[in-house]
Amino acid sequence: MKLTLFFIQIIFLFHNSIFPQKLDTELYELSKRIVRNSLLDMKGYEWLRELCEIGPRLTGSENSYRAIHWAKRKMEEAGFDTVWLQPVMVPNWKRGDLEEATIVKSKKYKGRKLNITAFGGSVGTDEKGINGEIISVKDFNELKSKGELVKGKIVFFNRQLDFGEVEPFSGYGKAVDQRSRGAIEAAKFGAVGVIVRSITTKHDNVPHTGVMYYVDSLPKIPSVAVGYQDADFLMKAIEEEPDLMVNIKLSCQTFDDTLSYNVIGEIRGREFPDEVIVVGGHFDSWDKGCGAHDDGAGCVQSMEVLDLFKRMNYQPKRTIRCVLFIDEEQRQTGAIEYAKFASQSEQKHIAAIESDRGAFTPRGFYVDTDSATLNYLQSFLPYLNLAKIDWIRKGGSGVDVSKIKNTKALFGYVPDSQRYMDVHHSENDIFEMVHPREFQLGSAAMAILCLLISELGI
Amino acid sequence: MKLTLFFIQIIFLFHNSIFPQKLDTELYELSKRIVRNSLLDMKGYEWLRELCEIGPRLTGSENSYRAIHWAKRKMEEAGFDTVWLQPVMVPNWKRGDLEEATIVKSKKYKGRKLNITAFGGSVGTDEKGINGEIISVKDFNELKSKGELVKGKIVFFNRQLDFGEVEPFSGYGKAVDQRSRGAIEAAKFGAVGVIVRSITTKHDNVPHTGVMYYVDSLPKIPSVAVGYQDADFLMKAIEEEPDLMVNIKLSCQTFDDTLSYNVIGEIRGREFPDEVIVVGGHFDSWDKGCGAHDDGAGCVQSMEVLDLFKRMNYQPKRTIRCVLFIDEEQRQTGAIEYAKFASQSEQKHIAAIESDRGAFTPRGFYVDTDSATLNYLQSFLPYLNLAKIDWIRKGGSGVDVSKIKNTKALFGYVPDSQRYMDVHHSENDIFEMVHPREFQLGSAAMAILCLLISELGI
Repeated sequence: MKLTLFFIQIIFLFHNSIFPQKLDTELYELSKRIVRNSLLDMKGYEWLRELCEIGPRLTGSENSYRAIHWAKRKMEEAGFDTVWLQPVMVPNWKRGDLEEATIVKSKKYKGRKLNITAFGGSVGTDEKGINGEIISVKDFNELKSKGELVKGKIVFFNRQLDFGEVEPFSGYGKAVDQRSRGAIEAAKFGAVGVIVRSITTKHDNVPHTGVMYYVDSLPKIPSVAVGYQDADFLMKAIEEEPDLMVNIKLSCQTFDDTLSYNVIGEIRGREFPDEVIVVGGHFDSWDKGCGAHDDGAGCVQSMEVLDLFKRMNYQPKRTIRCVLFIDEEQRQTGAIEYAKFASQSEQKHIAAIESDRGAFTPRGFYVDTDSATLNYLQSFLPYLNLAKIDWIRKGGSGVDVSKIKNTKALFGYVPDSQRYMDVHHSENDIFEMVHPREFQLGSAAMAILCLLISELGI
Repeated sequence: MKLTLFFIQIIFLFHNSIFPQKLDTELYELSKRIVRNSLLDMKGYEWLRELCEIGPRLTGSENSYRAIHWAKRKMEEAGFDTVWLQPVMVPNWKRGDLEEATIVKSKKYKGRKLNITAFGGSVGTDEKGINGEIISVKDFNELKSKGELVKGKIVFFNRQLDFGEVEPFSGYGKAVDQRSRGAIEAAKFGAVGVIVRSITTKHDNVPHTGVMYYVDSLPKIPSVAVGYQDADFLMKAIEEEPDLMVNIKLSCQTFDDTLSYNVIGEIRGREFPDEVIVVGGHFDSWDKGCGAHDDGAGCVQSMEVLDLFKRMNYQPKRTIRCVLFIDEEQRQTGAIEYAKFASQSEQKHIAAIESDRGAFTPRGFYVDTDSATLNYLQSFLPYLNLAKIDWIRKGGSGVDVSKIKNTKALFGYVPDSQRYMDVHHSENDIFEMVHPREFQLGSAAMAILCLLISELGI
């Protein structure tokens, strides 16, 4: 009777086109237990609450060290077989206390502040700040066409995320060059600073930060994000008064690289301890909000994968290793350091999974692998569907795990994406924006994937 | 590990790159435009804002009539070919101003209020209310086992939604009998009232209402929901003081059935005007919050399906009819009336789609149809995937459209479900809980399905 019900349930879930598939009842039952335990215990979610209470984890910041030691302690308390810190030199940009943009020349708006925040890596200003008229452009082509007009001005990059893209990541991808390369391109034409419309799906006034770059051959000019609503305001204001002038003051500063750490913990495989499956996220965040979705959640989900096995008193066949990579947001020094370690290790990395797309309801896994392996991996779907994973598709894994060489498969965990750019790199990215069930299903989805790779191999 | 292997037929859940059939480029381009227009225009979302400003739409309430006329006007302004109101007699329960539960006998907690709300259909009390000691049970079996002890008491049904179920609807299904039949079962043993732990995935103190039933052969006793946190409190309090007594006062009342309306609008088919595709939701709501997700969103998405065709200046091959069913929450009189009309009509209803599971990101469609038709419908997935629909599976459509007979297929739109029970039937179900992009993707998913059925037939 029970088995009949089991069949009915499976057929109901997977009724579609047909091919024969071996389903392991024991692994299926274990997968169900993983989902149920994850949803009932809420242990990862409570860990995330603790992590967020520490505050944001900018690479090289005091908070980031507190968080690193918190994670190490949690892994030790959870009884992982080995826990260690891997040293790595990281960038050391600090925001400072002063971030101000003020309209200093205008009949109508003099004294009006703009809600801005410096991009990570931006130079600061002296205490008087920089002054400039605003020149608004949509993209680098328009900037180029303005040519000489740009000189001495502050360039306002005013292209919004493409809301018409079904994938907010795609809409983001079409706008992010303004942030990452805007200061370089503007400096070519003699601009004194850059203001960029925040890249966001939310029409609020919260500025969204993120990394920006310079080249040594050009002057380094300050670059800031402005809130979406203030970008609308600024657009209107310069239409009314084209010679309106803005002052920007920033006390941010880049210091020498400093020592930090990847946090690593593992459960050793009972049969093949030298075959390693990595699961991880990046432990640094921007210094707005507390990096709850980006990527506190991915880190804590990765920790919870191992903890779920511990809670279920289950020792995997292969080693499962949680890696919390430091410094994804700036130079990926943590990922590079881990990949170096991996390539020099006697152990074989057979797969790696990254969670760095937020903690919303699971949808699928992207996987970087060959077609035969992809076909094989899709036989995992009946198990993964228990945690709301509907597909496994070819696609990019993640910035950190993609640096690990010679694995059979690199996975990127894909949750629902519609709300991610509302919070990304901003004060909106706080613990309260994480839904407990959605978060816990992510832990479960990654744990089932680790279970299957560990038991069945690739 | 002991492996028990067996064979089973499973779904082919691959990405659309693997779908073998040839795509109709024109329909594919139209589908892309639908998604893009829906996300960029946000027209449905703004309609939902207006609808929510009217307030909740309890069947027979003044607000419900205001909303009915609002919807009719919007459909007319949007230029639908025909718009009409279909009269139907509906239940007429009113909450009244007084809803109070107070601890009246207790050493420690006398005077403490409980956050309660009457279930829809509950009888009221006289102005003194009812008094009773609390007897806590988990289910009807435990109630039965208490037997004589129940007499003269208030039964506290204290079984929570099963948080371990991956589908909140399943967790809800396992707990909802306490609400719907609790007063009947308790009355059998001489109880004077019923308090039910709110059926919710959110651990707040907001009580969740919903329909409850009586039978004429038993006394009708008041039945209320209590907030999740106050349910925890009550549980603790009666452990400390088993003879603690609660007073419940309610001024709710059931009046004679009254006249209301389904709101119907259609765009006539350019080739087969007598073949009808219905898309709809239920227009009534409970009187807490404003019925934003349940089911203002489903109604407005259905209106927007037609409006999207209008905005794109596209006349479908078959007639597409939006039906806003009144009174789903209580007796489904609106659905019954529409089904009667449909069965007497000369027109043929070839399909019907219901949206009544909230306005979160699209996941799939359940469809009530035969296997051959299901196979055919799955050829729509490459188009539907543009709006984040990953699957079409056999399953129940919806309470309202399922009453329509002799269609080829009845669909239930399935968005992500993890947050739905946080808001369901409560003050949490407000406009602000609807995410604009998630909502708009629902409109787009249903519009693409209507487009394909209209153009390609079933």
